[in-house]
Amino acid sequence: MAFDGFRPLDEKILVEYLKATPSLAAKLGNKFDGFEIKEVGDGNLNFVYIVIAPGGSCVIKQALPYIRCIGESWPMTQDRAYFESSTLQEHGRLCPEHVPEVYHFDRTMCLIGMRYLEPPHIILRKGLIAGIEYPLLAEHMSGYMAKTLFYTSLLYLTTTNHKISRYCGNVELCKHTEQVIFSDPYKVSEYNRWTTPYLDADAEAIRVDNILKLEIAELKSKFSERVQALIHGDLHTGSVMVTTESTQVIDPEFSFYGPMGFDVGAFIGNLILSYFSQDGHSNEGADRKLYKVWILKTISETWNLFHTKFTALWDKHKDGPGEAYLLEIYNNLDLQLLIKKKYMDDLFHDTLGFGAAKMIRRIVGVAHVEDFEWIKEANKRADCERKALNFAKTLLKDRRQFHNIGEVVSAIELFDTR
Amino acid sequence: MAFDGFRPLDEKILVEYLKATPSLAAKLGNKFDGFEIKEVGDGNLNFVYIVIAPGGSCVIKQALPYIRCIGESWPMTQDRAYFESSTLQEHGRLCPEHVPEVYHFDRTMCLIGMRYLEPPHIILRKGLIAGIEYPLLAEHMSGYMAKTLFYTSLLYLTTTNHKISRYCGNVELCKHTEQVIFSDPYKVSEYNRWTTPYLDADAEAIRVDNILKLEIAELKSKFSERVQALIHGDLHTGSVMVTTESTQVIDPEFSFYGPMGFDVGAFIGNLILSYFSQDGHSNEGADRKLYKVWILKTISETWNLFHTKFTALWDKHKDGPGEAYLLEIYNNLDLQLLIKKKYMDDLFHDTLGFGAAKMIRRIVGVAHVEDFEWIKEANKRADCERKALNFAKTLLKDRRQFHNIGEVVSAIELFDTR
Repeated sequence: MAFDGFRPLDEKILVEYLKATPSLAAKLGNKFDGFEIKEVGDGNLNFVYIVIAPGGSCVIKQALPYIRCIGESWPMTQDRAYFESSTLQEHGRLCPEHVPEVYHFDRTMCLIGMRYLEPPHIILRKGLIAGIEYPLLAEHMSGYMAKTLFYTSLLYLTTTNHKISRYCGNVELCKHTEQVIFSDPYKVSEYNRWTTPYLDADAEAIRVDNILKLEIAELKSKFSERVQALIHGDLHTGSVMVTTESTQVIDPEFSFYGPMGFDVGAFIGNLILSYFSQDGHSNEGADRKLYKVWILKTISETWNLFHTKFTALWDKHKDGPGEAYLLEIYNNLDLQLLIKKKYMDDLFHDTLGFGAAKMIRRIVGVAHVEDFEWIKEANKRADCERKALNFAKTLLKDRRQFHNIGEVVSAIELFDTR
Repeated sequence: MAFDGFRPLDEKILVEYLKATPSLAAKLGNKFDGFEIKEVGDGNLNFVYIVIAPGGSCVIKQALPYIRCIGESWPMTQDRAYFESSTLQEHGRLCPEHVPEVYHFDRTMCLIGMRYLEPPHIILRKGLIAGIEYPLLAEHMSGYMAKTLFYTSLLYLTTTNHKISRYCGNVELCKHTEQVIFSDPYKVSEYNRWTTPYLDADAEAIRVDNILKLEIAELKSKFSERVQALIHGDLHTGSVMVTTESTQVIDPEFSFYGPMGFDVGAFIGNLILSYFSQDGHSNEGADRKLYKVWILKTISETWNLFHTKFTALWDKHKDGPGEAYLLEIYNNLDLQLLIKKKYMDDLFHDTLGFGAAKMIRRIVGVAHVEDFEWIKEANKRADCERKALNFAKTLLKDRRQFHNIGEVVSAIELFDTR
């Protein structure tokens, strides 16, 4: 059976494909009896098949040529499978402990074969909605972000190795991000939605807020024009699979050379969304007060550990190949402290800005989050969303006034009690 | 005669090449008698042949694989001919009145055939040294910069058309720029030189100035990471040919998607260098007092006209394809004024920073300018250079304190009288 063109997978085709592909067949122990195949993709962007055989397992992900939830009118390049596979491999090389191994990539079929993240791995967002604490989450995510961002930046790479043209091609997904995060929520768009009628005035207020628009323009310009590191590009809590011991980052199809704060902000912004959604889930039996404290602690620790680990990598490689700050120039301790403080302050403010932008778009833009969507009573959901939205607006506008993550956490608590 | 590999040109090869290349032969009227050929390249980077035939003329430029003035130890990719030719064509399309027409490009031979800029065109730098006023210079250069920068930025282009991977490859020349402008002058380097012993202490002072190093790091990061527009990349007064009526920008081999301020700053910074060099030329008969006033006026007008023309293009295309500020979002006059002010203020400060960096490197780095080099008495040259250097250091450190070009001109005058 030949696969010389793109064919959408079904179970039959998948089985033939697995048999015909040595790298995948080997992962299944080369035995094709007693197979179990399950399609688990949300079907919006990709097919995702879990394959469990007596001799092993794998996940097969195939990119489809459009976003199914919106319709074929919003096509999405299948090249994203190439960028996803490239970044899984590159980030996996830098941080194998938190990135699933890639076994196989087929550009024509837009197909990635990779490690199956076995139970009890679940999507972090679902764990947060269920109120499950992950004691190692901040430790793990800070390590993943510190390694992937530091090692793909000019702090570690030479200019020649940094400006790789490989990711220039991922424009279509960047363009999608630009539209849904930096544009649509700030204008009338057929794709926008919100908890109506409760948030009608709130959504309208965003569309007439000049200062907010000025700030989002600055972030959009950074997103489009700043080639800082190979970022994941979509690092929300739905792109992370967890158990209490393991943290695995998946789905980097939006990856490109962009601003680091976009990744760190995506993760922290989604933790803040989770925080503000908790009151909507607290009547389901469990009291979420302590859980909210844990989320805030996780937010603090994520940034603080990221800061510690990132700057430790910088120290470790200060006489390495990185070309941003040559040791011959930045040759005294005072100066090294100055540049580090400036760099990390900028990254902190980028993180807050992008985090806030990600929160806003999840409440009044096209794609919402289950954290809020699963709150059935609309008025209750709207109350949670409004608090999150008001906090995000302040964070976006006043981000440069925050000096550390502790001040951010205090502000979250303040907006929660308003 | 076949040209299937790279061969350095000599006159004989050149004549055969012209005969064998219809697009060039046509420009010479297809007549090959009474030819005049002159090699006028400085021979450091390229061969440049002027070809004048009875029926027409052209210039043939060929890239060599290294920088001859430094030696074969500093190789330079010949791909620069490709980037030069691409940018001449792209900028020429946007601003044909100030960019010479390209007739022919041969990637294998690294050879560009283009319009011969006939006498009395001379290199602007030489005109400035000779004390010649060019009444249209500010008008022309501001127009060239406004058009080429605006039309290749996200203010006019869609993201898809902006992020073209075509220029990602010009890393080697970017790396060279990074080294000679943003690194070498701030550390001990075998390539650095200055008017010794007069400026020994001044050169040393730069290498121990933490604040200066902090600022140059910020500019280096912008240069390496900010993909803002298709810039010329080397827009000093040696890259401009002039008569009193005509202004032609040549040599964009360092072009890439970078920060706009790097171009505007290069041009203005080199005008300031010319200003500070004038006292070194004033004893040659002509009094340069009035000429210095003309240079200052040209500096002011260049920025002010650039500002006017650039923002006029922005207004003209405000409902065009540009994706930076969608009209649906930036939909009221207050907001439009706000974003424009912020954008132009940032560009102004980038311009001053990059301009200052370009000045510093011409005094204590590897490549100097004839404006100073042609001042024979070393102590007199050093006096001029020191004033320029002191001004540049202040400009680099305090650039954000300048609100308009008038304040910059006043500061130049102040440093001149110190």
